Amino acid sequence: KINPDRLWDSLMEMARIGPGVAGGNNRQTLTDEDGEGRKLLQSWCEDAGLAMGLDSMGNMFARREGTDQDALPVYVGSHLDTQPTGGKYDGVLGVLGGLEIIRTMNDLGIRTKHPIVVTNWTNEEGTRFAPAMLSSGVFAGVHTQEWAEGRTDADGKRFGDELDRIGWRGDESVGARKMHAFFELHIEQGPILEAEGKDIGVVTHGQGLSWTQVTIEGNASHTGSTPMPMRKNAGLGMARVLELVEQIALSHAPDAVGAAGHIDIFPNSRNVIPGKAVFTVDFRSPDKAVIEEMEKMLRMGASDICGQMGLSIAFEKVGGFDPVTFDEGCVAAVRNAAERLGYSHRDLISGAGHDACWINRVAPTAMVMCPCVDGLSHNEAEEISREWAAAGTDVLMHAVVETAEI
Amino acid sequence: KINPDRLWDSLMEMARIGPGVAGGNNRQTLTDEDGEGRKLLQSWCEDAGLAMGLDSMGNMFARREGTDQDALPVYVGSHLDTQPTGGKYDGVLGVLGGLEIIRTMNDLGIRTKHPIVVTNWTNEEGTRFAPAMLSSGVFAGVHTQEWAEGRTDADGKRFGDELDRIGWRGDESVGARKMHAFFELHIEQGPILEAEGKDIGVVTHGQGLSWTQVTIEGNASHTGSTPMPMRKNAGLGMARVLELVEQIALSHAPDAVGAAGHIDIFPNSRNVIPGKAVFTVDFRSPDKAVIEEMEKMLRMGASDICGQMGLSIAFEKVGGFDPVTFDEGCVAAVRNAAERLGYSHRDLISGAGHDACWINRVAPTAMVMCPCVDGLSHNEAEEISREWAAAGTDVLMHAVVETAEI
Ligand SMILES: NC(=O)NCCC(=O)O
Ligand SMILES: NC(=O)NCCC(=O)O
Repeated sequence: KINPDRLWDSLMEMARIGPGVAGGNNRQTLTDEDGEGRKLLQSWCEDAGLAMGLDSMGNMFARREGTDQDALPVYVGSHLDTQPTGGKYDGVLGVLGGLEIIRTMNDLGIRTKHPIVVTNWTNEEGTRFAPAMLSSGVFAGVHTQEWAEGRTDADGKRFGDELDRIGWRGDESVGARKMHAFFELHIEQGPILEAEGKDIGVVTHGQGLSWTQVTIEGNASHTGSTPMPMRKNAGLGMARVLELVEQIALSHAPDAVGAAGHIDIFPNSRNVIPGKAVFTVDFRSPDKAVIEEMEKMLRMGASDICGQMGLSIAFEKVGGFDPVTFDEGCVAAVRNAAERLGYSHRDLISGAGHDACWINRVAPTAMVMCPCVDGLSHNEAEEISREWAAAGTDVLMHAVVETAEI
Repeated sequence: KINPDRLWDSLMEMARIGPGVAGGNNRQTLTDEDGEGRKLLQSWCEDAGLAMGLDSMGNMFARREGTDQDALPVYVGSHLDTQPTGGKYDGVLGVLGGLEIIRTMNDLGIRTKHPIVVTNWTNEEGTRFAPAMLSSGVFAGVHTQEWAEGRTDADGKRFGDELDRIGWRGDESVGARKMHAFFELHIEQGPILEAEGKDIGVVTHGQGLSWTQVTIEGNASHTGSTPMPMRKNAGLGMARVLELVEQIALSHAPDAVGAAGHIDIFPNSRNVIPGKAVFTVDFRSPDKAVIEEMEKMLRMGASDICGQMGLSIAFEKVGGFDPVTFDEGCVAAVRNAAERLGYSHRDLISGAGHDACWINRVAPTAMVMCPCVDGLSHNEAEEISREWAAAGTDVLMHAVVETAEI
């Protein structure tokens, strides 16, 4: 078993970098704080005897040699970047859990046939630069690197420029590495494990995602002197589409969810009727057909709403992935490990997207989940217990060691 | 009659300072561009032989002496600041129209008993620092100067600090000046005059305004892994309140309008269910009782909506003024001037708020309005014709000269 206190101390030490305002973290991708977090991880990896590789998307790969020179490595990891109101565990647990299993194997003198590589994927969250899981997506060949580097943040800064600025661009070509397997430990970010009192989620599937950016245009005009019948209020059009999004999601419950998290209004002045509203609708389901149907209902319904109001509307797909079925062998390794260690467990469908969802396309992949308090994530109040973190990391270690072979 | 080409050239020259992106202006209050616009006005006023006074809210007062040393001045003016997507005429016409009547009187050698003072009021628009008409409000004793100086913009910058920064704080104490009368020329910002083919609006009343800032709080959480029944989506709550605002306004039509122009969502990330929404509801009516009833309906209805959704809601009144009845004598001077000059005219209720609405509390006040194309304002596409501008300024001059007495 791993060392729960050492793992917890590392989690708390990393959380001091890019602290939030309410006990969590704001360590968004490619900020100075991201750079500092990477440096801390690197120093810990060096202390653990690992050799750091870095590719040209900033993905970090810390390698522990195996006994067989020719064997492909088993990869393990997640991401260090956070939401603007992020918690201390979303992503971080998967990276530092990966480090902890190396530290434990060092303590116990365990050698594996396959090398083990602890990974930190760049820009998993997708807040600053959409879409989410950007660099694991390039690694898996889903996006071109050129397209990814051209993604811009709200200030118009390019991903590629910001990567250079913080000094974490490597020489290695992205996706060149071949993997024997990939394992990702993550907090559930949902309520099921805690509600059912289970220690471990064995993630068999990941639900799919669609991000549709909606732009509604009306006519900016004076809130006082424009008569009601003459108004083309893009903000009101948006309000009606947000209600539609809720109804579409509810009509597919419990196998779908939907919301808009990002909303910008222009010119955003108290006495100007909004001339433009830009917002992103996030639909998810484990069933690809349901996602496609929800997208269609959105496009048709929102176009109707705006047509009736004299507003124009445009849609752009800015992110998404299909539902994922993880590798049977890797999933079994996770389930067996939980069983062997005596942890209660159940199969889970991941509600969130993860780097593992993309890596699953290029390597046998599975995920381990541990509970989080009230299912709360993407909130600074995100919380887990030391015991949950330890159990998840124990299972991760056993699944990895079994796959990497002693 | 005034010189239409000189007036138009000055309007176009001022519009070069703080140009917008679509042919209009972005010359928000207390920006560097505001400072530049003030400098240009000052140089024009000096060329016209006026002496510039400046109070400690940055209100500018360019004085032409009268023949009677003891007579109180007639004031005339409006504001040079614009919306972020502002036009070239909203406010500017009233200031440069005031300058043009001085230039014309200089040309014609007209002397008046009462001095005439051309005024530029600071921060009429209220976009950067709420509320609107801030400095005329301090002048009229509606706000304390201390409170006004402490107003902050979206970046947390204080009004008082920004006024110092651009170097336009004067020594004069605010509101110390006594006025014989105040006249403000403004574009209608609504569709009535153009639709009816009238040259001049004789403004008898101004409708009242209420700005209620609404803060809805839910719980930021993951858009993918939070089940629909567990969500506390502050953005959805806001959407429902925006629909309520529309219904409240429509239920009082045609004597009321309502909308929300300013909306902020937190943390504003595509994969985070909004934990907080802050927006300002703008209700207006010529009838104070209607405004009060709409406010009450908003507070009750929005509280119900949020209560049912498990969201918390708070209201703060961040601006407003009662409906205004302008001075009979000044209004008659405007009507008589239009009549005498042979311009078609009609009485109007101003849909927008104006500095004149506050000054009316401390001096006999009236307004002259001219049409604008499609009633469009607070939009860079705001447009008027040279003839409309000239007719409005002619009427302004005649009303001012009659009141200032030859
Ligand atoms: N795990 C996680 O929060 N990933 C961000 C991508 C998503 O929105 O699902
Ligand atoms: N005239 C004008 O646009 N004033 C701004 C104050 C208001 O919102 O009415």
